[in-house]
Amino acid sequence: MKEKIILLAHGSSDPSWSNTFVNLTRPACSDNAHVSLGFMELSTPTLEDCIAEAKKEGYTNVSILPLFLATGRHLKKDVPAMLKEYETKYSVSSTLLSPIGEHPRLADALCQIIEESI
Amino acid sequence: MKEKIILLAHGSSDPSWSNTFVNLTRPACSDNAHVSLGFMELSTPTLEDCIAEAKKEGYTNVSILPLFLATGRHLKKDVPAMLKEYETKYSVSSTLLSPIGEHPRLADALCQIIEESI
Repeated sequence: MKEKIILLAHGSSDPSWSNTFVNLTRPACSDNAHVSLGFMELSTPTLEDCIAEAKKEGYTNVSILPLFLATGRHLKKDVPAMLKEYETKYSVSSTLLSPIGEHPRLADALCQIIEESI
Repeated sequence: MKEKIILLAHGSSDPSWSNTFVNLTRPACSDNAHVSLGFMELSTPTLEDCIAEAKKEGYTNVSILPLFLATGRHLKKDVPAMLKEYETKYSVSSTLLSPIGEHPRLADALCQIIEESI
């Protein structure tokens, strides 16, 4: 079975903040059953919810694509520690990908957004 | 004269964090003299540096495109307050655009990143 891709956003107590990520990921998630959105803290579904769900669906490998622009403490320490715990708890293997802000496609998109903003 | 577009990132005391934004914006900035990168706090050039520079270059209108994924306190309160101060100080008008995470092009880019990550 293909691996599950979990799009991981930070999360917030402000629902409008979280809704931005629901909208941002709708095209990616609705086109692909292998993709879901989760939050590191403060919003649901949590990263653990997503991994538990992936396991129920039969996946044994999950890749985490951080919806962060750059790598800070959360991606260096907090998320790896969470993944280590969940790998054991749910018997899955996980791969933490680079955040979207480090991907050349995002630089391309930024050029397009600027063109459309002028 | 065309308006100046300032790409505004949060900023960090970690240089590798800030460098991600230098890399992310290089294609946009190097292709276009009307575009520059600035930081809200902790990194340089600051938003004020960028506005002062734009004024020196002859611009009287600046648009701020936030390199943020969603709108939180910084974009609701802190940045508008800074812009209000700098508009007066530098005799420029400013427009705060929506953060890149709310733009449909970013959702498109995310679909491409996922495809390339599988």
